[in-house]
Amino acid sequence: MRVLLGSGGFRSEQRRENLRDEMQDFFGPSVSTILFIPYALHDYDAYLAAMKQNGFDGGYELVGIHEFPNAKKALEQAEAVYVGGGNSFRLIDTIHTEGLIEPMRDLVKAGLPYMGVSAGTNVACPSMMTTNDMPIVFPPSFESFGLVPYQVNAHYYGGQIWVKHGEEFVEHFGETRQDRIREFHEMNALPVVGLEEGAFLRNENGRVLLKHGSATLFRVGLDEKVLDSGFDITAALKG
Amino acid sequence: MRVLLGSGGFRSEQRRENLRDEMQDFFGPSVSTILFIPYALHDYDAYLAAMKQNGFDGGYELVGIHEFPNAKKALEQAEAVYVGGGNSFRLIDTIHTEGLIEPMRDLVKAGLPYMGVSAGTNVACPSMMTTNDMPIVFPPSFESFGLVPYQVNAHYYGGQIWVKHGEEFVEHFGETRQDRIREFHEMNALPVVGLEEGAFLRNENGRVLLKHGSATLFRVGLDEKVLDSGFDITAALKG
Repeated sequence: MRVLLGSGGFRSEQRRENLRDEMQDFFGPSVSTILFIPYALHDYDAYLAAMKQNGFDGGYELVGIHEFPNAKKALEQAEAVYVGGGNSFRLIDTIHTEGLIEPMRDLVKAGLPYMGVSAGTNVACPSMMTTNDMPIVFPPSFESFGLVPYQVNAHYYGGQIWVKHGEEFVEHFGETRQDRIREFHEMNALPVVGLEEGAFLRNENGRVLLKHGSATLFRVGLDEKVLDSGFDITAALKG
Repeated sequence: MRVLLGSGGFRSEQRRENLRDEMQDFFGPSVSTILFIPYALHDYDAYLAAMKQNGFDGGYELVGIHEFPNAKKALEQAEAVYVGGGNSFRLIDTIHTEGLIEPMRDLVKAGLPYMGVSAGTNVACPSMMTTNDMPIVFPPSFESFGLVPYQVNAHYYGGQIWVKHGEEFVEHFGETRQDRIREFHEMNALPVVGLEEGAFLRNENGRVLLKHGSATLFRVGLDEKVLDSGFDITAALKG
């Protein structure tokens, strides 16, 4: 299986360059068209147009799955697939409605290259439970594609956050990401990769490589472990 | 109906004093024991002990609903109820499992004073959809007590957040609260009150008073509206 998972937050020129390089290296020159799944945002056409306009297409032709009369058939005919970010609840709801869970699993297992960013990364995991998104719709299930055997928390950061009141930074006391992931582990056993903005997890030939940024690994009963860019995290994920 | 909704974030002496004052003013001298619902955290006994130790009991005797053999009966016999914060998904899951939705609605309608903080505020709304929490369990429904006819986003702040890398503040590019609430309004019509940490919404005699902090009101098709402490927001909530 070949699965490229991005955290999102491509707001600097360097990060956008990394995204482009990573896409070209991952999909390669034999792919020409990528099927884009825009279900995480409200307006699919606007989303697809913005992807092209912002250069988030990596130089490939993106076609929206919503432009086909049948989503399942569009997926079956795709050379490669890219699931974009937005709201994970809305995304998984539509994935279930369109009946894409099993077909995606089978196709990616058979070699279809899968790329996800942010919400698109969440739904590549066994469940979408480690999302940061707001529940804006009640999906039939949190079950997701399960293309990788671990969970990802995208847009990860450690510690408290700060908000700006005028020019002053004020500490905010909501739960930290560490709190949230610890709560997840009170009820679930899968390892969680807290993936910093701009970073990627490249899953290929049974190995998982961390690229373009750091991550923090959370495993039940073990201390959290900070991972540097370039690290092969395959063994660490196993315990 | 008498419903006191807190945002949480009681980390300063001033905020803790406001909490105590507000509880004493809301529950009054005739209440002696408050039934505490600790379902949002993993360890109910530890939660109850911490509430007392941190002085979050407002000078009242708190008894945990989990200490009774039957949760529904405990609720029926309560003088007052306080639903604590933590993870809203875990909270609503247990509320449904224990069959408390209808009994709580009926009892609060009949005069039982309800206080909620953070997750306990989310579940007082028609649904828990405007929570910030991580989905760590799949509840049977997002439907909540519906004691007030609007949604609350607790621990609210406006704009982007910053994280600290050493001594340096680094901007974070995940969705803002405004983004998330706008997404909620793409699929739902209820007004949302973004309630800042330390603030309360006091619902009494059909009126809603904002206390001890600011809030931002979001309504479909209208600009967001910043509300100051002390403001009677009853009319604004109606459109």
